[in-house]
Amino acid sequence: MTKFAKYLPALTWLKHYQGADLKNDTVASIVFTIMVIPQSLAYAMLAGLPAITGLYASILPSILYSLFGTSRSLAVGPVALTSVMTASAVLPFAVSGSEQYASVAILLAFLSGVFLLVLSLLRLGFLTNLLSHPVISGFISASALLIVIGQLKYLLGIQSEGDTLLPLVSSLFAHLGDINLPTFILSVSSIASLLLMRRYFINLLKALGCSDSFVQLFGKSGPVLVVIAATVTVATLSLDNMGVSIIGAVPNKLLGLNIEGISWDMIKALFPSAFLISIVGFIGSVSVAQSFAAKRRQDIDPNQELVGLGLANIGSAFSGAFPVTGGFSRTVLNTDCGSKSPMTGIISALLILLTILFLTPLFYYLPKAILASIISISMMQLVSVEDLRNLWRFSKKEAYLLIITFSVVMIEGMETGLIAGVILSILFFLWHTSHPHIAIVGRLPGTEQFRNVQRFSVETNPSILTVRIDENLFFANARVFEERLQSLVSQDPAIRHLILMCTAINMIDASALQSLEKIVDRLADSNVKLHLSEVKGPIMDRLKQSSLLDNLSGQVFITQHQAIQALETKQTNE
Amino acid sequence: MTKFAKYLPALTWLKHYQGADLKNDTVASIVFTIMVIPQSLAYAMLAGLPAITGLYASILPSILYSLFGTSRSLAVGPVALTSVMTASAVLPFAVSGSEQYASVAILLAFLSGVFLLVLSLLRLGFLTNLLSHPVISGFISASALLIVIGQLKYLLGIQSEGDTLLPLVSSLFAHLGDINLPTFILSVSSIASLLLMRRYFINLLKALGCSDSFVQLFGKSGPVLVVIAATVTVATLSLDNMGVSIIGAVPNKLLGLNIEGISWDMIKALFPSAFLISIVGFIGSVSVAQSFAAKRRQDIDPNQELVGLGLANIGSAFSGAFPVTGGFSRTVLNTDCGSKSPMTGIISALLILLTILFLTPLFYYLPKAILASIISISMMQLVSVEDLRNLWRFSKKEAYLLIITFSVVMIEGMETGLIAGVILSILFFLWHTSHPHIAIVGRLPGTEQFRNVQRFSVETNPSILTVRIDENLFFANARVFEERLQSLVSQDPAIRHLILMCTAINMIDASALQSLEKIVDRLADSNVKLHLSEVKGPIMDRLKQSSLLDNLSGQVFITQHQAIQALETKQTNE
Repeated sequence: MTKFAKYLPALTWLKHYQGADLKNDTVASIVFTIMVIPQSLAYAMLAGLPAITGLYASILPSILYSLFGTSRSLAVGPVALTSVMTASAVLPFAVSGSEQYASVAILLAFLSGVFLLVLSLLRLGFLTNLLSHPVISGFISASALLIVIGQLKYLLGIQSEGDTLLPLVSSLFAHLGDINLPTFILSVSSIASLLLMRRYFINLLKALGCSDSFVQLFGKSGPVLVVIAATVTVATLSLDNMGVSIIGAVPNKLLGLNIEGISWDMIKALFPSAFLISIVGFIGSVSVAQSFAAKRRQDIDPNQELVGLGLANIGSAFSGAFPVTGGFSRTVLNTDCGSKSPMTGIISALLILLTILFLTPLFYYLPKAILASIISISMMQLVSVEDLRNLWRFSKKEAYLLIITFSVVMIEGMETGLIAGVILSILFFLWHTSHPHIAIVGRLPGTEQFRNVQRFSVETNPSILTVRIDENLFFANARVFEERLQSLVSQDPAIRHLILMCTAINMIDASALQSLEKIVDRLADSNVKLHLSEVKGPIMDRLKQSSLLDNLSGQVFITQHQAIQALETKQTNE
Repeated sequence: MTKFAKYLPALTWLKHYQGADLKNDTVASIVFTIMVIPQSLAYAMLAGLPAITGLYASILPSILYSLFGTSRSLAVGPVALTSVMTASAVLPFAVSGSEQYASVAILLAFLSGVFLLVLSLLRLGFLTNLLSHPVISGFISASALLIVIGQLKYLLGIQSEGDTLLPLVSSLFAHLGDINLPTFILSVSSIASLLLMRRYFINLLKALGCSDSFVQLFGKSGPVLVVIAATVTVATLSLDNMGVSIIGAVPNKLLGLNIEGISWDMIKALFPSAFLISIVGFIGSVSVAQSFAAKRRQDIDPNQELVGLGLANIGSAFSGAFPVTGGFSRTVLNTDCGSKSPMTGIISALLILLTILFLTPLFYYLPKAILASIISISMMQLVSVEDLRNLWRFSKKEAYLLIITFSVVMIEGMETGLIAGVILSILFFLWHTSHPHIAIVGRLPGTEQFRNVQRFSVETNPSILTVRIDENLFFANARVFEERLQSLVSQDPAIRHLILMCTAINMIDASALQSLEKIVDRLADSNVKLHLSEVKGPIMDRLKQSSLLDNLSGQVFITQHQAIQALETKQTNE
């Protein structure tokens, strides 16, 4: 059972699942389903697909994640970031709205799913760590801003094209004369109502004397009411005849993968996008899952999450939909509705299926401007200046990293921006480690502690130089380290012993070993002995595999204190 | 003066330069020039250019480096690795032997020079550190082997094409029936004589009663004698009429950059090659310069080396030649000939100019097979199995890195191999740091020293958990670190204090800071206080810029000993 449970985490919670839980989860699922529908429709529109595919993407993926994922709270389905990344990945291959477009989006979901499974199989989840905090922050802010600008065409009822700042803005300006007044009024009033609802709806319900449990259940249903009100308004006033764009009739068949339109070259060309979408989706999802797990003292297994999300994406592809992942706002909704287990994911999936089968006519008059309003408001919350301000205080360099990522995303697009950010993070890190902090240390009087001579008043011995290298020794700094030691020793002819204090060395690679061997040789020529102290266990094991210790002119001491005592005693005896 | 001398290092040695030095350097230069000519011609052939351009590439570059470089021994000119990299970079753009080919090679030299100067200006020399020891080793072995295989067409007198293993070998096999017997005999006898000369020539000279100084000067002139003997043989027996390929008439004009053939697209396409050639050339050159400098207790300034080599390449472009750098065999020759200062670089440049002006007819009958023999023998020395064996013992992972780099160079070409090696080095390193060694430590009885509980028998306190993280905290491991701490604490409900012992932490970036903040929050929820000990000065300065210390539930202790004492005292009082 435990072995099965590792691969099918649902077994763990299903074991203790009882009738009362089912009752609770069913109520939660009904409310959740009603509230999540507008969001799902909106994100499908963001992906450039018919709004209904947002519902397709909420059935199989949600069930598969509930069975194979390790989070008890996470809600999986269409999410803003991966949806807009889908749009910008698919656009080069097909015209928005065409069958080919849907095929490519489906293929993308499939490839993303496969990538996630491969990452899990090869235990390559660590690759997701490459996205550093400043890069993610810059990426999210810029993408959210781009999304909002991209929604302006729906909010204003005009044409516009492009998925980066300049084309978007210039195309918006070119069509600024075509603003559709009814659409504009609808947008302004829906944005205003959404903002007001967010701030005052709960208080209003309380003031109206609703029970606490009712307020908790429906406190966030503001968007649903706005959607209903707008749809009814459009239908009764026939605003669609006055240029207001509506969802319209929903195709009664699933979109499928059109195999004929797919070539191996296209698959190869989609690889990078699929990879980035799966990584970005995975990181976002795991961080949401972890923060909810911490609140409930539960555990998340990142490797199994790759499986859960991978299967969810493959499920989405087989549903004729686009890449999905675990979303923050979906998960908040899910918890607010009182979900206690992944069973809500399964029940709400079934409810959405019923909706598709019987209720799609209700969406006929739903205006696109309302969905755009919902998207815009939730995206504006993701644009964070606060983050930049904190970073600026902590590290200018990382703040620049955020700014650069932000700018490249805005100007060159999401993928280029993300890749540029990752490459820069790595280069910044390598630059840092290739300029290692090397401290000359001495003994704190009366202790066995050794500290930087520049920061503490410590005792030193003129013929013994102790150098603490505050960095791993590896290819990026091996040559620098070699040069620095040579110049330190050459500055003072009194030095007879050089002790390398290795407290901070966690890794030595072959390049550093080569440098160490050169240093031993060169110091021997200048009659200086090289000693090592405080070498960590794993490093010592490693050095024993090389010939360095055989050729070492000095000794290896466990502690720096012992090293100084031994060398000073030797000196007195000489 | 000192300020000038920084930018024009020649001023430093010219200040003390005397008549006797000039006399010594002139003799050294004459011998050096005679011996270096065959090598220079051979490497031009390797670059796919007329042999004479090897001499063009030895004039201005050598003078410019002598003035602007910081090594007193380094000899700059055509070098095997950069020459063959030139050939493989130029081939996609032009047919070997065409005017266009020469233009592209010249452009490549110019771009390489500009790159080196830019790296110097932006202080980006650290980028060269990205080439780790295993990658360089695999790259050099594979390139040398490819070069030797590429020379077989000259050694056998047949046609062959391609610059990677499979095309080269298949094309050699296809033409194996066309072997030219006179060429083959010439090759075999010249390789045999070269090998014999290398081993026995010095002893032979001594046995013939030559003076020690004569032996020292001419002990390495074997290749020159073989070249002369072969040229005379070909000329007297008219072997060129029997299919032996010879240098032939030397064009009496400099090759120039054909501006019309150059487009901006071509420049962009050459960028990566120019970058890699300059980096590979720079690394090789600096390592040669440093090893010779160490022997003479002199200093090398890597940043000024970028300037010296950059100007040398631009000089080579203006001479109608190809990328150059400081070479190992050139420098050995230079030192063996008795060079004492960079003046030999200037004098031998002038001697080569005289050679071009008056002595080129002497090269008419020089057979290409001889140059190929010289190349092949010097390349075979670069193929090192020893290196792989040592690496295998030290670190399997790095040995695989060498093998992969080697294989990709052989199969996909030099540039792809080098790039693959660099990316893999970085990924290996990030993989390593993203799986940090986290040790639980306790006190060595009776000391102030703290060690890993798994390696030493130490004292611990059940309510205090001390964790030493043996790695920098940054984006690549921040999330892993977060997960590990959470799981450590959750395993033992008795823990009330968690001390992070930060001896080995040299860097904390914003991603790690964010993780630390999350850890503080989560531990507070489980009623565990987080303390820090042994935080390094620079890290402490950095943390003070953030809000972490304000929100810290515990304290910051200078030493781990103080931390334990304080927390244990507090416990007793409670």
